[in-house]
Amino acid sequence: MSRRESVCSNDHLIEMTKSQGDFLYHFGLGTNTHNLVEQFGDVRFVCMGGSPGRMLKMAKMLQECLSIGKGFEPIDLATKGGRYSLYKVGPVICVNHNIGASTLSVVLHELFKLLDHANVPREEVHVIRLGTSGGLGVEPGTVVISNTCVDAVKRSHFHSAECGKIVPLPCRVNQEAADKIHSVAQDLKIESALGGTMGADDFYLGQGRLDGAFCDYKLEDKMAFLNDLHDNYGIRNIEMEAHILSAFTYRANVKCSIVCVTLLNRLLGDQVTTPKEILVQFEGRPLTLVSEFVRRECEERNLIKK
Amino acid sequence: MSRRESVCSNDHLIEMTKSQGDFLYHFGLGTNTHNLVEQFGDVRFVCMGGSPGRMLKMAKMLQECLSIGKGFEPIDLATKGGRYSLYKVGPVICVNHNIGASTLSVVLHELFKLLDHANVPREEVHVIRLGTSGGLGVEPGTVVISNTCVDAVKRSHFHSAECGKIVPLPCRVNQEAADKIHSVAQDLKIESALGGTMGADDFYLGQGRLDGAFCDYKLEDKMAFLNDLHDNYGIRNIEMEAHILSAFTYRANVKCSIVCVTLLNRLLGDQVTTPKEILVQFEGRPLTLVSEFVRRECEERNLIKK
Repeated sequence: MSRRESVCSNDHLIEMTKSQGDFLYHFGLGTNTHNLVEQFGDVRFVCMGGSPGRMLKMAKMLQECLSIGKGFEPIDLATKGGRYSLYKVGPVICVNHNIGASTLSVVLHELFKLLDHANVPREEVHVIRLGTSGGLGVEPGTVVISNTCVDAVKRSHFHSAECGKIVPLPCRVNQEAADKIHSVAQDLKIESALGGTMGADDFYLGQGRLDGAFCDYKLEDKMAFLNDLHDNYGIRNIEMEAHILSAFTYRANVKCSIVCVTLLNRLLGDQVTTPKEILVQFEGRPLTLVSEFVRRECEERNLIKK
Repeated sequence: MSRRESVCSNDHLIEMTKSQGDFLYHFGLGTNTHNLVEQFGDVRFVCMGGSPGRMLKMAKMLQECLSIGKGFEPIDLATKGGRYSLYKVGPVICVNHNIGASTLSVVLHELFKLLDHANVPREEVHVIRLGTSGGLGVEPGTVVISNTCVDAVKRSHFHSAECGKIVPLPCRVNQEAADKIHSVAQDLKIESALGGTMGADDFYLGQGRLDGAFCDYKLEDKMAFLNDLHDNYGIRNIEMEAHILSAFTYRANVKCSIVCVTLLNRLLGDQVTTPKEILVQFEGRPLTLVSEFVRRECEERNLIKK
């Protein structure tokens, strides 16, 4: 494979891997200890989400949906790292990233290096985040499929600190894939919307909540902030990873989709008070939607041998 | 308790808690569902670290060290939140935060609200982070006790996005506590150093590593960056939480210490190649050190009833 097709862009990495190997410290996987081509060479989709439990659930749903390994407990391939859970179901990796941009950056670096070492061509890769979020002007339970991303101060770039300097990276998601996922949602009759997503670095202050440990702004400031996001930026939901995810995937030249259910309407409040059983139902919606999308894509691209 | 002594500074929170209660969503604990004063009113120390496993280990070590609940398996009090692990051993909370500033911000907001609801006076609170880090010019295995903190572009302020605006918050750790912990380390003959800590938002690019998925700078840039940090800023280790932790605890008016072992010397390389059994030994050092420090403090302040 020509280096030009790789998801990584780092000449040091090529040299280092050749001379001493590369150890993906937080996954506990490495080129010297694993045959990454054999183990991960057929990966085409990466499903990611915050909590490890949700990713295990997604792996099980994909087993059913793709008829791969049905009935077997998925094996966590990243236990040696002690930080994340990573499963593989046929051509799909399911990996959790916990909360926020920093922890997701660790996952993205090591995921891209994994795909690079496994010789997966970047044109074939589709990264899909399945998450929960606060909605803006949409009914709780609505699945928002992101068509734009901004950061917590409404910039369309993720500001990445690299070797002591701040580098602004454009945030971009794949429009065609967003439309496709939206149309699958309509087929499945899952309440959904195409819209903008704000990725914030703080669940409370960054999202203009009034119920954090600190708060130096007023209700009026909060409402002005949220209404501006809604009316002038087309933002329909707020979570904590869209900014870095859309920027890093664009930099890696791979397709990116962000599919998050809204747990509340932030224009009406801050606390998540929806009963647990309804929340569980809401949280399942992106999983149902994306597993059906992946199933159709696998069929269309003939990715699964019968 | 007068509000002035609270770790929180948010009038909205006071009103909201009175009228409808406060639910700490990511901990799964709330004022309507738990008696937080009874359960957490005696908390005086908060030990935190990235991985849930390390915090369970710390809880067990404290059980031994403080002779509280010895032999019983510590109970995770945050399972309902599904995100973090939180244990309590006498006057000590042990809670994990995973990797980076965003996820730590969630923990700090909900922890401060928990202490506020439990009526813990802020003068009594000491937050101590126990972590792993990359060292600068110190031998791997050295425990660095932070005396200053900077962010990934060498600023002494954490840049917090709040309701759409960037607010710089000063990063400060408690010097007296740092000296005390350093002297306990000397008593225990644990290799240690007082020094500055850089909190970065990216394990690879933010820390000037050459082995990330992307890299647009050269070896010379990396070395100039790291040497500048070492020579001109007194930085002795790099991790991913010191900037926000020192800023948020200073804002809350509570004591903060950061105690991280170095796993490698970044002036000599980027990959963590130390064998697993040595790493495990290194990772135990901050736990041994801080549990002895907490034991002495408890004795001095007469916090544990015999």
